[in-house]
Amino acid sequence: MGEKEMPQTSRDLEAERARTSFAPTELNVLLRGDAHTVEARHRLLARIAADPLLGEGRLDDSFLSRAERFDKSLARMRRVHELGLPKDEAFVATRLFREGGALDKAGGFGLHTGMFVPTIELLGSDEQRATWLPLARSCAILGAYAQTELAHGTNLARLETTATFDPRSDTFELHSPTVGSIKWWPGGLGKWATHAVVMAQLTTADGKARGQQSFIVQLRDLRTHLPLPGIELGDIGPKMGYDRVDNGFLRLCRVRVPRAHMLCRHAQVRADGSFVLSSDNPRAVYGTMLFIRVYLVEEASLALQHATTIAARYSAVRRQGGAPTGAADGGGETRPPPLERAVLDYQTQQTRLLPLIAAAYAVHFAAGALRVRYDLFRASQDVRTLPDLHATSAALKSFTTSLAASGVETCRLLCGGHGYSHASGLPALYAEFAPSQTYEGDNPVMLLQAARWIVKQLGAGAARQGEGGAARDAPDTRGRSPPDGAARGAAAVLADPGAYLRDAGRAVERASAPYDGSPAELGGSAAAQLCALREAARVLAVRAAAALHAHVRSGGAPYEVAWSERASADLLEAARAHARYLLAACFDAAVVEAHAARAASRATLGALGALRDLHVLSACDEGCARVLLESRYLTPEHTLALRARLLELLPAVRRDAVGLVDAFGLTDLELNSVLGRADGNVYEHMLAWARRSPLNATHVLEGFERHVRPIMGKCTL
Amino acid sequence: MGEKEMPQTSRDLEAERARTSFAPTELNVLLRGDAHTVEARHRLLARIAADPLLGEGRLDDSFLSRAERFDKSLARMRRVHELGLPKDEAFVATRLFREGGALDKAGGFGLHTGMFVPTIELLGSDEQRATWLPLARSCAILGAYAQTELAHGTNLARLETTATFDPRSDTFELHSPTVGSIKWWPGGLGKWATHAVVMAQLTTADGKARGQQSFIVQLRDLRTHLPLPGIELGDIGPKMGYDRVDNGFLRLCRVRVPRAHMLCRHAQVRADGSFVLSSDNPRAVYGTMLFIRVYLVEEASLALQHATTIAARYSAVRRQGGAPTGAADGGGETRPPPLERAVLDYQTQQTRLLPLIAAAYAVHFAAGALRVRYDLFRASQDVRTLPDLHATSAALKSFTTSLAASGVETCRLLCGGHGYSHASGLPALYAEFAPSQTYEGDNPVMLLQAARWIVKQLGAGAARQGEGGAARDAPDTRGRSPPDGAARGAAAVLADPGAYLRDAGRAVERASAPYDGSPAELGGSAAAQLCALREAARVLAVRAAAALHAHVRSGGAPYEVAWSERASADLLEAARAHARYLLAACFDAAVVEAHAARAASRATLGALGALRDLHVLSACDEGCARVLLESRYLTPEHTLALRARLLELLPAVRRDAVGLVDAFGLTDLELNSVLGRADGNVYEHMLAWARRSPLNATHVLEGFERHVRPIMGKCTL
Repeated sequence: MGEKEMPQTSRDLEAERARTSFAPTELNVLLRGDAHTVEARHRLLARIAADPLLGEGRLDDSFLSRAERFDKSLARMRRVHELGLPKDEAFVATRLFREGGALDKAGGFGLHTGMFVPTIELLGSDEQRATWLPLARSCAILGAYAQTELAHGTNLARLETTATFDPRSDTFELHSPTVGSIKWWPGGLGKWATHAVVMAQLTTADGKARGQQSFIVQLRDLRTHLPLPGIELGDIGPKMGYDRVDNGFLRLCRVRVPRAHMLCRHAQVRADGSFVLSSDNPRAVYGTMLFIRVYLVEEASLALQHATTIAARYSAVRRQGGAPTGAADGGGETRPPPLERAVLDYQTQQTRLLPLIAAAYAVHFAAGALRVRYDLFRASQDVRTLPDLHATSAALKSFTTSLAASGVETCRLLCGGHGYSHASGLPALYAEFAPSQTYEGDNPVMLLQAARWIVKQLGAGAARQGEGGAARDAPDTRGRSPPDGAARGAAAVLADPGAYLRDAGRAVERASAPYDGSPAELGGSAAAQLCALREAARVLAVRAAAALHAHVRSGGAPYEVAWSERASADLLEAARAHARYLLAACFDAAVVEAHAARAASRATLGALGALRDLHVLSACDEGCARVLLESRYLTPEHTLALRARLLELLPAVRRDAVGLVDAFGLTDLELNSVLGRADGNVYEHMLAWARRSPLNATHVLEGFERHVRPIMGKCTL
Repeated sequence: MGEKEMPQTSRDLEAERARTSFAPTELNVLLRGDAHTVEARHRLLARIAADPLLGEGRLDDSFLSRAERFDKSLARMRRVHELGLPKDEAFVATRLFREGGALDKAGGFGLHTGMFVPTIELLGSDEQRATWLPLARSCAILGAYAQTELAHGTNLARLETTATFDPRSDTFELHSPTVGSIKWWPGGLGKWATHAVVMAQLTTADGKARGQQSFIVQLRDLRTHLPLPGIELGDIGPKMGYDRVDNGFLRLCRVRVPRAHMLCRHAQVRADGSFVLSSDNPRAVYGTMLFIRVYLVEEASLALQHATTIAARYSAVRRQGGAPTGAADGGGETRPPPLERAVLDYQTQQTRLLPLIAAAYAVHFAAGALRVRYDLFRASQDVRTLPDLHATSAALKSFTTSLAASGVETCRLLCGGHGYSHASGLPALYAEFAPSQTYEGDNPVMLLQAARWIVKQLGAGAARQGEGGAARDAPDTRGRSPPDGAARGAAAVLADPGAYLRDAGRAVERASAPYDGSPAELGGSAAAQLCALREAARVLAVRAAAALHAHVRSGGAPYEVAWSERASADLLEAARAHARYLLAACFDAAVVEAHAARAASRATLGALGALRDLHVLSACDEGCARVLLESRYLTPEHTLALRARLLELLPAVRRDAVGLVDAFGLTDLELNSVLGRADGNVYEHMLAWARRSPLNATHVLEGFERHVRPIMGKCTL
């Protein structure tokens, strides 16, 4: 009954692919770094797909209760461990876990390996490492990282959990003095972990506060898995997404731990109760934080890759509108297929979708650039590079995760009604990704941290002063073929991200000279547009700093009050503009580098270049026009030309849209979406999925007989 | 253990309320229309709160599976019917249902009363009304409205379901010829309804296509509730939100219905097979559509009211940052309460939250204005008013539902980590509200419908031509005290919403004269700002129309292709600017009217006026600056002054923030949020809720023993 007509939808995607101007597999290799990585990834994906438990379609998970999903996730994690992957595939497997596609974000394992183990590595003494790491790495103990409290998130200095040293028993007493001090949110803490690293305010026997320290606390009996005395813990209840994670709470009632359980690489309490800071530079602690930010920027690109793949493919298959049905249309079941146009042909669809495809690429290259800078820091341990790296990673983390979250939601809306169905995969993708806007630093707070650095750069003078200079122009970031796709080329952009601000600092009171090219020149030059993005960031930085200082001078307001109550809106804008510029500059540098290295065929580089053009123009449209008209750097004719050029570019990118998302190389198993299927056969799979819905197990629901039948015929509406 | 400190949070809200500059209860009466409505609402809410089933906290519903929630919803609906409310309370009860707060959006009842019954009223002949309405109103039959198909949403002309008339049997044969033609999404269709109004393409016996007609089709046996022969139906599976609704699918396999089942007020098939259009004006069909749009604009305000109440109260209670802890801090459990500042004091929180509170008011007044216009149409049945009303409702529906959806999500983000917990109520609020961006016309499609009207206005010349003129300056919309709050005053704005565009049409080629006031004058005058908003809408309309005509002239592209592939991005912007102007103008007119009628005390009107100022300035900041710099109506000094004034206004509005959301008068039962509690005692209720989470029913999950224990000690990470 009609199914025969359905392969037609697949022909839609075939037609799209036939007219793609380049080879997506080639672009995929450029994105992933090299052909070996791509192959290893495919091998592993094939192995996962062949496994009965791991390879099953996970769309049906949306039929399960939270407890069932949690259980299934644990089962899958067990299966992964049973696979016993060889070392070289373990790395790829880790990435697959992280990409959240081929496998689920699982229970507490991610935080065990991502936070618990690294914290011991970072903060533990050699002896502590020797004691705890073998236990943790073999999963003999399962660890959570307990920092955030019910009433305290961002400001770690205000954590309330106490750790009081008692020299007589040589123990710390850990305690939750208030309801607000209960540890809240740590993943894996609720039902899974046996141990936790607990952050607490240390007080030594002399009554002195010694700041926050980290303590290893055993939570549960290793035999019975029951909570130990003095410990109340549990799951914090259902959330938006994260069904598979037991984010937990932990209330400590005067729990004693041995003195050796305080991680003591950087600070130590001796047996006599004295407190000693080590000579190690505690700034190295920032390493983990930076690592996680790099990871979150990569996640932002992946979220956009998933969402745009789904939206672009479905937009090529989904037809709407077009001329009204002819009245001569014969009717009956031999009616010809509708002649509506693919929604991808509509400009309103293109203006929202295509820039998000471009953004997925931009964020990918920015993440690669950030990783190169991070690896340089790891290799050199040069703490002078930390301020730049901290500010850059904070700005990019917040800008890209906000961009990706709203981008995923936009892609969902671009799929019309079916975007609301869990069969689309998009509601779950949003729910799983959205929290990255908040954890590891709420985005506005992160942006304001970047703004502090921006204000400091403005005041620093043009010559690089002290810290950070060592990393500038690091020779390994330029002029070499890109070992990790084109990303390394972009790293040069991040080598001295504050240079333009230090120049601006000299010229705070001086308006910059207006752009001297014609509107057509501006519209046609990505380089000129990047200069405009940088100029917008400069103007907003100078404006925010001026507002801040004016409030301090005029009102007698303390600096911090002026900062947060009077200037933070402008400071936020400045940080956003800085991030927008860096992101566009990274994309541009990656394209330039790929061209220089002849990293792909001319056709592929051309398609990538057009996408770069679209990204830079979109960034200008969003972030340049108003501020540069206000500063008179641009004229109305310039901003109108930018907008016109953006719209002109859409049809060319639209032509390659399916190819550009195919180049992400995401498999159906990873996408987990009926709408995003590689074969485009959407509707019959939607029907098959719906038929399996639990509410359809019986024709008549028991609740109907119980609650509806009794009132039938008796209402007065 | 610490709970004693918790009443402090309540003191935070007490302090906020103590310094509110006006009486929220007075503003509540102004919003709700009169004191009688407010009292009736409170009486009914008290009755609901006292009921064991209806009054229980619904936050624990988030612990239930979808099937359990669906069941509970049916039980609650039954209970409501059992209450047997008196007629005068029935109206208020309907509103409460709709507000989605005091009770749930329930099963299929909403669509039975909101779509099935009204469709029969509207499209049924007198005889059909007499047959079906008593059955439907007593719920002897339960109806769904089956229009959307799996592959067809927006474009009704392309629906594929067929209805073929067979004169020999005097029946229609209804059929789903393809998978894509299966009815998909109708609420209540899956497990609940016994009947449906089915939209299908009619073919008469002469083989002629007669367009879409509506047919009453019995789906299930009234005794067994089992599907009838030829009918496959079921639930379409889980979605984002709407757990309690069985959105369904329906596949018809040559199902026969009697000729009398085609609703035939406007078109009829006679026994001889001839097809007759009635003399009734089929445009009256638009009535239901308009009614639903008015309803959706009201829903948009309610969603913002809920979200901003939760976010404002929690932002007054939640503390973050502030100066670092002093090292001299004694430590131990006598540590004083933290001195962090309420996040409501941060400018970055204010710039996002306070304009959304203002938007909740603006949308409320715009909804009231739209309702007045709709009631005028209902009373007059003057179809000449329809084009204006259609365009205005389309523009406001799409603009306000998009604004509210993103506003709810912003409020969720403003609550930090806890905004992700279902205890906040915000994830569910977003999931329940978001679909209104898509149903009843996908927002971009609706905006483009408004844009068609805009382009037509531009071409119409200044004198009102033909249709619509009758409604202009309707005397009952002016100069009278507002019977429905201040909303009626705003209705005058919508009396002739296209006037400024028809003026612009005359002057398409002429730039308007620049604004001649100083930056300070512009910043201080809501009237001047409204003119700027209108001018921005005019410029964008002229620009979009010019782009459209240029593409038609130059490229030889057919008008419809130029429209959708080349000009729709600009047209969308024009429609958005038009809606933005109307919304601000409605708020302003309502305030002016409330002042004129002395509808509240000076303090209350002052607070409302400040909120209006904030809304208009925010609208200018978002929608005026770039375009009016480009058109040279404003100078950079003007747009900078607007922004500066916006930031200056924040502290005054922040002072009243809690009072302004208290004035919405939403009870805890309606808000369904731990974070939004009226008493501000957030954290201990969060803990109590989490303890009840099903995962906490046992200390050790069975899945832990099964899946985790076996790998403990055996991993190599």
